[in-house]
Amino acid sequence: MFPSRLKESAAMVQAHLDATLSPLGNLPVHEAMRYASAGGKRLRAFLVLESARLHGVAPDNAIWPATAIEAIHAYSLVHDDLPCMDDDDLRRGLPTVHVKWDETTAVLAGDALQTFGFECVSRPDCHPDPLVRADLVLSLARAAGAKGMVLGQALDIAAETAATPLSLDEITHLQAGKTGALITWAATAGACMARADMAPLARYAADLGLAFQIADDILDIEGDAATVGKAVGKDADAGKATFVSLLGLDGAKRHAADLVTDACDALSSYGDEAETLREAARFVIARDS
Amino acid sequence: MFPSRLKESAAMVQAHLDATLSPLGNLPVHEAMRYASAGGKRLRAFLVLESARLHGVAPDNAIWPATAIEAIHAYSLVHDDLPCMDDDDLRRGLPTVHVKWDETTAVLAGDALQTFGFECVSRPDCHPDPLVRADLVLSLARAAGAKGMVLGQALDIAAETAATPLSLDEITHLQAGKTGALITWAATAGACMARADMAPLARYAADLGLAFQIADDILDIEGDAATVGKAVGKDADAGKATFVSLLGLDGAKRHAADLVTDACDALSSYGDEAETLREAARFVIARDS
Repeated sequence: MFPSRLKESAAMVQAHLDATLSPLGNLPVHEAMRYASAGGKRLRAFLVLESARLHGVAPDNAIWPATAIEAIHAYSLVHDDLPCMDDDDLRRGLPTVHVKWDETTAVLAGDALQTFGFECVSRPDCHPDPLVRADLVLSLARAAGAKGMVLGQALDIAAETAATPLSLDEITHLQAGKTGALITWAATAGACMARADMAPLARYAADLGLAFQIADDILDIEGDAATVGKAVGKDADAGKATFVSLLGLDGAKRHAADLVTDACDALSSYGDEAETLREAARFVIARDS
Repeated sequence: MFPSRLKESAAMVQAHLDATLSPLGNLPVHEAMRYASAGGKRLRAFLVLESARLHGVAPDNAIWPATAIEAIHAYSLVHDDLPCMDDDDLRRGLPTVHVKWDETTAVLAGDALQTFGFECVSRPDCHPDPLVRADLVLSLARAAGAKGMVLGQALDIAAETAATPLSLDEITHLQAGKTGALITWAATAGACMARADMAPLARYAADLGLAFQIADDILDIEGDAATVGKAVGKDADAGKATFVSLLGLDGAKRHAADLVTDACDALSSYGDEAETLREAARFVIARDS
């Protein structure tokens, strides 16, 4: 069920990105916006669409926050890959934006993708209730901003020059911002759109986001660059504290498995209806890319 | 009247930026966000607050879009100053963010300032009507994004390597995006918040924005770096087409003066109440910084 739903979500969001980004024009910044937002697993879009389905929200509405979160995610990757950040040449198996074009285009395309994300959730076609649109914008801004994703990124950078490696608590806090905040926004978007209780999905997403990051750390050790689609072994080479360096490979795998169990339990009130989301949680620690 | 209102707007928005950005933390990215959003003429904040006053919108509400537009403006300056963009060392007479900190911090601080701008206008304290909040977000996203400010910036970059210099129409189109879109958003914000007709303020702002840019081109020729607060003579040195290179110094001044007359005329329906906005239009072509 989950693999087909993920594939379906990816196709839907790609079609919607094509439809909304094509009319922009053909300057390098526009080409780069389309290039950078293409591909990827689309886990965040899936979480939006699946949580929306769970709450009876129409796919025609849910596609807008699904597109928004993929645009924000893409912006963060384009800027993270810049030479002054992680300096990565490869993303999803393809040259990064600043390699294919240049740094100027990468900065601008990332900037415009962020803006586009906010445009998606404030459009009247996103939801008939303007309160829902304003709430989606506000929660997305908080998830992406200086107390969310950017905070995680800034903590990650600060850790590189810190005198002592991060503790488990510190790295958990860092990751809650860096990857957790957007994942939580995505998973709760459906409940937000239905004006339903967001707490169960928020608990699910917090565990899922952390498990996802631990799996990433494990892939950085065990993964194959060609399959993962980006350089591996970078964290270990840089002497960075990761869940694997702190817990060991087996300990990290156990911790991730425990988190997935908790994530699945958090959805008990939804019964069998949430089985695809539970499958998704099991998938994030079993994936090879 | 206008100078005191401008000063008052600047003080209000600075106090509000201090109150909203201080709690963020003290990582370099947070310090840089405060540093980059401090100072400046605050013309955009003034336009929001004055158009709000004209429509009887409470200052406690209007301060949020005023803060938002200054945050978005600050983000654009931080990224524009980067080595891969305009490579400027000086802004408002002080070292630019990437000089004072580093490029990483400048990219992240700009990113987070953009996000913060959208947070400001989606907060319930910005306006009691969620439709107004959602509309402010949507119009701000359109003004700042790949068909607005970023488009202007991208056209400016494309012009640097173009075989022929830009025509007057092309440079007008470029500037309508690069500086005009945010100025128009600011000037129409008050009408948007009152759900009133935005057309007169939009016409005023289109003329004002263009006059502002022509004045900038003139300052680049006639200005003094210490007073202007940034490097001057860069456009001429780079052989860039500007309003001055296309119209001559006198022609550019006449064009700017005509635009200011049109801007003032656009506000006739407001009568004397709009006199401060008319003064603002006269000011933008008389300023020395």
